[in-house]
Amino acid sequence: MSAGQAPVLVEDGSVERESDMHTLFGNSTSGNCWKPAVMLHARGLPFRWIEVDILKGESRTPEFLKLNPNGRVPLLVLPDGRTLAESNAMLLHLGEGSAWLPTDPYLRAKTYEWLFFEQYSHEPYVATVRFWVRYAGKAEEKAQEIVERTARGHAALGVMEKALSATPFLVGEQPTLADLALFAYTHVAPEGGFSLEPYPAIRGWLERVRAVPGFVPMPFHG
Amino acid sequence: MSAGQAPVLVEDGSVERESDMHTLFGNSTSGNCWKPAVMLHARGLPFRWIEVDILKGESRTPEFLKLNPNGRVPLLVLPDGRTLAESNAMLLHLGEGSAWLPTDPYLRAKTYEWLFFEQYSHEPYVATVRFWVRYAGKAEEKAQEIVERTARGHAALGVMEKALSATPFLVGEQPTLADLALFAYTHVAPEGGFSLEPYPAIRGWLERVRAVPGFVPMPFHG
Repeated sequence: MSAGQAPVLVEDGSVERESDMHTLFGNSTSGNCWKPAVMLHARGLPFRWIEVDILKGESRTPEFLKLNPNGRVPLLVLPDGRTLAESNAMLLHLGEGSAWLPTDPYLRAKTYEWLFFEQYSHEPYVATVRFWVRYAGKAEEKAQEIVERTARGHAALGVMEKALSATPFLVGEQPTLADLALFAYTHVAPEGGFSLEPYPAIRGWLERVRAVPGFVPMPFHG
Repeated sequence: MSAGQAPVLVEDGSVERESDMHTLFGNSTSGNCWKPAVMLHARGLPFRWIEVDILKGESRTPEFLKLNPNGRVPLLVLPDGRTLAESNAMLLHLGEGSAWLPTDPYLRAKTYEWLFFEQYSHEPYVATVRFWVRYAGKAEEKAQEIVERTARGHAALGVMEKALSATPFLVGEQPTLADLALFAYTHVAPEGGFSLEPYPAIRGWLERVRAVPGFVPMPFHG
């Protein structure tokens, strides 16, 4: 890990309070880690970014496992020292009370729906293939699994294409957390070999998301 | 699909309003489908259950794909005919305003965290291995993948064990949607060959969840 001021771990695994800022442990290449960064930015909350090198195992060290027993980034440390894992949980926590999280019960439920879709039906395919091919050097070792996951990734992109052919944003007329969550790995899907050529509605939507006030490109370190 | 009164699909893919009840398309063996059923019960909402035979491809028919383009159950049809996919989105939607979904922002965020943990780090391993071994007859065909996924399933159970060694329920002192979401496939994990013997805290927690008012065992059809 690298940071100007690393937080001090205390015995219960929480982080000693140092400031009124959030601290975000993340990896710059990760769409999951970009999600809370952009939402912190959108809410006007300054934060410290601490780079975690996944390929060097820095998210599985005993020290890091005290912060997140699941051994993953992003990991958000709130100003009071309490921790929160899971990128989409961070989006919901940080987005509460903003226009990014609808108050209408149905639109809110559809936002949830897309967030779970992203983690279950999109990320394990689109993001994982990109990681293997682009960052982990596993294109050959994982060749067969990449074929299978690429097909499932395209299935997820197909579901998005259908939705975005009907409405400008995933949940409807306005951008929500769902758009940020799905933008994260969709916009870098070509790095994993996914052509977006067959998806004109997705390509138009990527441009609309980029134009939403508060948007910052990936990576974003605050 | 089998039901006394199947809903009538209308042109936009929604379901023609027939009553003031929710309709839940589900499969009786699925923990994901049990989740919204138990929450409908806990909220005192009567519902119709329509059995979908996944193994016969009934969640991928053109008719079903109009309801859920992602081709999965559960699929909830609200009384007004609008649809909602993703079991944990249903829990959040149906649980809003109840004690199952904390109002304290941090406890609420931790509830979200566990729901995403369940779908990303637990279900693809614990539930998928159970499905292959117990229902799809793929114990041999998927033997190597079952070894890998069993290891990841135990990693997820280890994360739960650690949390439940500290507090009686996943988010703390009180049961939340997180407990229902993780109960779903944890309590049937032995059907996939996962011994719960090494997890005394999980075993105690399973009993506590079963004793929570509103709990109904799986399957539950209303």
